Amino acid sequence: MKKTFDDLIAKLKDVPTKKVAIACAQDSAVLEAVKAAKDRGIANAVLVGDEVKIKEVADSLNISLDDFEVIHVADDYEAALKAVKLVHDGEADMYMKGLIDTRSFLKSVLDKEVGLRTGAALSHVCVFEIEGIDQLLFLTDVAFIPYPTLEDKVNMIKNTLIITEACGIENPKVAPLAAVEVVNPKMPVTVEAAELTRMYKDGEITGCIIDGPLSLDLAIDPEAAIHKGATDREIRGDADILLFPDIHAGNLVYKALVHTATVKNGNILTGTKAPVILTSRSDNFESKVNSIALGAVVADKMKNL
Amino acid sequence: MKKTFDDLIAKLKDVPTKKVAIACAQDSAVLEAVKAAKDRGIANAVLVGDEVKIKEVADSLNISLDDFEVIHVADDYEAALKAVKLVHDGEADMYMKGLIDTRSFLKSVLDKEVGLRTGAALSHVCVFEIEGIDQLLFLTDVAFIPYPTLEDKVNMIKNTLIITEACGIENPKVAPLAAVEVVNPKMPVTVEAAELTRMYKDGEITGCIIDGPLSLDLAIDPEAAIHKGATDREIRGDADILLFPDIHAGNLVYKALVHTATVKNGNILTGTKAPVILTSRSDNFESKVNSIALGAVVADKMKNL
Repeated sequence: MKKTFDDLIAKLKDVPTKKVAIACAQDSAVLEAVKAAKDRGIANAVLVGDEVKIKEVADSLNISLDDFEVIHVADDYEAALKAVKLVHDGEADMYMKGLIDTRSFLKSVLDKEVGLRTGAALSHVCVFEIEGIDQLLFLTDVAFIPYPTLEDKVNMIKNTLIITEACGIENPKVAPLAAVEVVNPKMPVTVEAAELTRMYKDGEITGCIIDGPLSLDLAIDPEAAIHKGATDREIRGDADILLFPDIHAGNLVYKALVHTATVKNGNILTGTKAPVILTSRSDNFESKVNSIALGAVVADKMKNL
Repeated sequence: MKKTFDDLIAKLKDVPTKKVAIACAQDSAVLEAVKAAKDRGIANAVLVGDEVKIKEVADSLNISLDDFEVIHVADDYEAALKAVKLVHDGEADMYMKGLIDTRSFLKSVLDKEVGLRTGAALSHVCVFEIEGIDQLLFLTDVAFIPYPTLEDKVNMIKNTLIITEACGIENPKVAPLAAVEVVNPKMPVTVEAAELTRMYKDGEITGCIIDGPLSLDLAIDPEAAIHKGATDREIRGDADILLFPDIHAGNLVYKALVHTATVKNGNILTGTKAPVILTSRSDNFESKVNSIALGAVVADKMKNL
């Protein structure tokens, strides 16, 4: 049966409403997404930033601030530190970027006093519902780690397993992707994919099934797996987690899906002790709302790490 | 106005029917595609290979061989050499792989006596019609060159320009793709993309516009280009040629398009003095027919190199 983004959002009905803390909330796209998340019962928000500017932006969008807690901090980086501290202290459940540059925002995430470090390296997970594909797909990493090492890839898988578990997916299937589905010593990506598979088989990585290298058709299309006679593979079109060789491959596939397929998607940063929402200019409105929803779904699981 | 694969095929009505020479034609998927190409007036074929086996496969598919010239050569590699020589000698217009391993097939393409060398390195071009995108997209290289150097990329662009010109696209826009649209010294792909752009601006590469590095949204989605305020770019959602950083990125995007979007596509090898059609098991029936059509459209242009 097809799994949908709405299935994820439905999980939120059974738990206390989560709250997202916004760093520099004077951003129209973010305020619109936060307002929709509130109206749909997905999450509440606390808006940290320059109160006058927040009010101006809210007024221009006809959004009433009566529904939101607003905390005035004029300086951008101080506002970010205040917002992330709310999450650090458990007064909010997740942390979202507003009108502040990405570098400063990430610096606040990693702040030793009030940030959200767990000891793990950060990585990015993008969750897709795609027309024609039954399972939700968890893509990593399409936005954050440029050229992951083998060690990075192990960490990316572990970070993503927390997200899949929170989304109710038991023993997910991880596809380390490449152009081909066999090891080719001239393609280091395939060698690393095979090494990840060995680590799974030898019990060094648990809580999932890993089968790579895998081409994308074998990973997501059961008919292609049948057609290619891939009866000896553990993944036959039913991968849950797509592990990309590098940020170029990941980001280009991500944008191909967003711009040519019928999809719903949401993205978060993981490896932190709360979901971090780092949407970009190129994300549309619904994906921003979905990112907040995804954060709300996984927040409790990440908190317990 | 939207350009379609059918627009390309329509060009074939105005020229003498082309002929494809098949290396080891005893392959059911290839025979079906060749039969459809014949029936639709796309191309004729000469079937080289083991005549008894070709007859068996044709019979099993209820395909009459009366419409085709069959040349009996029992040995696989000898059959390939015979088929490629027909193209080399101008008795056929393009060369297609049947039931022979890729390595032997490519060896015949590169044979110094009867092969199809031009001096250029070979590269792969995949032509896509995609629902929601007005222009045809020419992807290179999603299947042949694993890790292209800057020199390879220049060659890939030049090889592809022959194909776009044969398809009637004047001064095509070439997008050297990356995860980002700005140069980042930590991402060599972006540095090479900028160097290709410089080569275009300095007149070292002509017959096209090059603008990179470019993210995929800016390359194929005019609305995304407006939304991101990309007014200073030469490409704003209207790229014709997508140049991929490596085979993993290219192949993963290729398969994402085939398996999640609504597309028509055909593929050929270029850098040769005739189109070489190297379809794989994972290509569906229509894409095999489209590949023959693409070869027929571009054959005259490649011959005149």
